[in-house]
Amino acid sequence: MRELEERILRDGEVYPGGVLKVGSFLNQQIDTALMTKMGQAIAEQFKDDGVTKILTIETSGIVLAFATAQALGVPMIFAKKHKSNNLDPVLISTKVFSYTHQVNYDVVIARDFIDKTDNILIVDDFLAKGNAILGLLEMVETADANCAGAAVAIEKGFQSGGKKIRDLGIKLVSLAIIDSMSDDSLTFVPQD
Amino acid sequence: MRELEERILRDGEVYPGGVLKVGSFLNQQIDTALMTKMGQAIAEQFKDDGVTKILTIETSGIVLAFATAQALGVPMIFAKKHKSNNLDPVLISTKVFSYTHQVNYDVVIARDFIDKTDNILIVDDFLAKGNAILGLLEMVETADANCAGAAVAIEKGFQSGGKKIRDLGIKLVSLAIIDSMSDDSLTFVPQD
Repeated sequence: MRELEERILRDGEVYPGGVLKVGSFLNQQIDTALMTKMGQAIAEQFKDDGVTKILTIETSGIVLAFATAQALGVPMIFAKKHKSNNLDPVLISTKVFSYTHQVNYDVVIARDFIDKTDNILIVDDFLAKGNAILGLLEMVETADANCAGAAVAIEKGFQSGGKKIRDLGIKLVSLAIIDSMSDDSLTFVPQD
Repeated sequence: MRELEERILRDGEVYPGGVLKVGSFLNQQIDTALMTKMGQAIAEQFKDDGVTKILTIETSGIVLAFATAQALGVPMIFAKKHKSNNLDPVLISTKVFSYTHQVNYDVVIARDFIDKTDNILIVDDFLAKGNAILGLLEMVETADANCAGAAVAIEKGFQSGGKKIRDLGIKLVSLAIIDSMSDDSLTFVPQD
């Protein structure tokens, strides 16, 4: 999505260790019009796939998930980070390792929000090693639902997450795929 | 807002201790169309007030804040819960006491997201004792910005937060105000 790529080039900030900060327009402070268009762009790619619900994880994927849900006319769900009892029968839970915070955390959703009739589109803001999306995918499988695919705003193409997800046969839409980034240069993988 | 009141009566669940669960349509799982209309209803009340940005606090206020920002055509910001150093010059921070979790937490926003030219509308999902909104108000004041007002989905009218905020002269819009609630009955304060 050209408008997102241009915005990343203009307002994104690259920090040591491969960290890209987009807090001024994509999380923390959100450019409402851009985010609405990003949701529409994702919806366009999944509009014929019979998506019944959008699933994301708190916090920074919530707005894009909502914008996508608006464009598809379906509900959205966000999994909560939680100190959970994994055996609680009313919850579906999984563990996700955060490289940003170097910690394993539990995420949960209420079991009655997803069932086997659902066709779930997973949405998040970033895709790097893929842990969050793989965790959400595990929750979809636990609920015996189908996964229609996954979509993210920004994929770090030089990390392993995108390949892992595509290798599973999951349809993956990334609005911008970063090919390489350093202090003074950031390039994208060309997309149609 | 009649549609929200009807939905609370139909799908809300009252738990001991004055807890109202609306996770099946307002947080965790979100009815996209209802939430969009709620944002529009808040925007309608503030459309002539020169709002420049929406401010909320993670997590459960984010979607309503975004829907309101869409309807007003302005950016939104969410304050993050954070183990912060309050003296960090690039952050505005405050402390908020959560009655739900019985813990004091720091919330922060980047200092350059709000300045003295801003006229901020604070949005959250629930208003009970008012701690979250009063904390956000303090952040607006720290930034020397103006507060256009505050808006919430659900005000617990039998708790003190609404009175505290109105007594400060802040314009407060609550889409539904609960007058009383118990296991078998829930009533609203009549609104126009």
